[in-house]
Amino acid sequence: MSELTIRPVRGLPELREGDDLAHMIRERTDLEAGDVVVVVQKAISKIEGRIARVDESEKMEVILSEAKRVVRTRGSLVIAETRHGFICASAGVDASNAPEPGTLVLLPIDPDASASLLRERLGELTGRVVGVIVTDSFGRPWRQGTTDVAIGAAGIEVLRDLKGERDPNGYELKSTVIAIADEIAGAAQLVMGKLDRTPVAIVRGLDVAGHGTARDLVMPADRSLFD
Amino acid sequence: MSELTIRPVRGLPELREGDDLAHMIRERTDLEAGDVVVVVQKAISKIEGRIARVDESEKMEVILSEAKRVVRTRGSLVIAETRHGFICASAGVDASNAPEPGTLVLLPIDPDASASLLRERLGELTGRVVGVIVTDSFGRPWRQGTTDVAIGAAGIEVLRDLKGERDPNGYELKSTVIAIADEIAGAAQLVMGKLDRTPVAIVRGLDVAGHGTARDLVMPADRSLFD
Repeated sequence: MSELTIRPVRGLPELREGDDLAHMIRERTDLEAGDVVVVVQKAISKIEGRIARVDESEKMEVILSEAKRVVRTRGSLVIAETRHGFICASAGVDASNAPEPGTLVLLPIDPDASASLLRERLGELTGRVVGVIVTDSFGRPWRQGTTDVAIGAAGIEVLRDLKGERDPNGYELKSTVIAIADEIAGAAQLVMGKLDRTPVAIVRGLDVAGHGTARDLVMPADRSLFD
Repeated sequence: MSELTIRPVRGLPELREGDDLAHMIRERTDLEAGDVVVVVQKAISKIEGRIARVDESEKMEVILSEAKRVVRTRGSLVIAETRHGFICASAGVDASNAPEPGTLVLLPIDPDASASLLRERLGELTGRVVGVIVTDSFGRPWRQGTTDVAIGAAGIEVLRDLKGERDPNGYELKSTVIAIADEIAGAAQLVMGKLDRTPVAIVRGLDVAGHGTARDLVMPADRSLFD
């Protein structure tokens, strides 16, 4: 690994249901084998039609319908577990960057499948084998601010397990598993911003091809120290 | 923002107490104004002599002496709050990548001050105004794997608050605060690896100069939904 570069994909139009995002990406960038294409969740939700046309007063109803479990609440803030097992604000339901006023964007039904579909289509169009990550901005317990994390992935080594490897002293690393896909998601967010309509970035120079999915990032309940 | 690049700084020796890390970095890389120099916590702890020379059987004692509060335990796993307010495994005490067998590495006393000192010294040596982030690998509730986060920062816009800004539809973003320093920390980890002794990376192409510290990333207890 000599150098990692991250470039936003510029000039994408406002996305609509049914759009061929892979084609739009292909028109605007030259992919190389091993690139990781990072796409924000809202872009995927829009092309998949995961939009609720409701008044903002009905937002709580939509949130609860998207939630498997409410984890914490304070005032209008709801931290909920989604069907996918992700724990995040409003079960991922959001009014910002929605297609138009009076709409809410919901998480994709199966973001790993969304990532996989986009990856296949990019492969068809470009002949390049790439990885794809679908990201969303999650808050964290005990820390201020959100970071982007992977909610969907395809063709990526999502977790890198260093178990059994040794440090330079020969000390065996017992349980170092790095959430690479989340670090890539956060890295890509740095070039995308929230406001200037750049929902896709290309990460180049990593050696992270693999077979993980974002579901692998969800801690099984029986191993979780937190409820 | 057109492109972000991240490069590891190669060829650093094993670090010892009192080493002039800024000088070592300067010898191995050309810094530009606005670069962010990311350094893993263990490098800082080693040059600051934050090493406990104890048998691993005494590790729990050291952890508890470094902890302000124990948050969760399971078997030998202790999640604790450090003096700085960080919540992490073993209160940041770690045997991997320690200077030699029979030693434990502790977190720096004041990682923001460590970052600030390194930043000043880099400024003296290079004439460049850069940002510095000190990182550590933390686990997260509900998600598998660690990501690197900022435990020290200087000259950086640690949190970017989009409050009051509007999305392309004019929807006002109510509470979008991005933990930029944590995303930079994770991004840098991608090129550093755990094993091949590259504790420093240079992030170029961001526009993140500012005055934040990693303490700003700690959620105040009265605002936290989690204990």
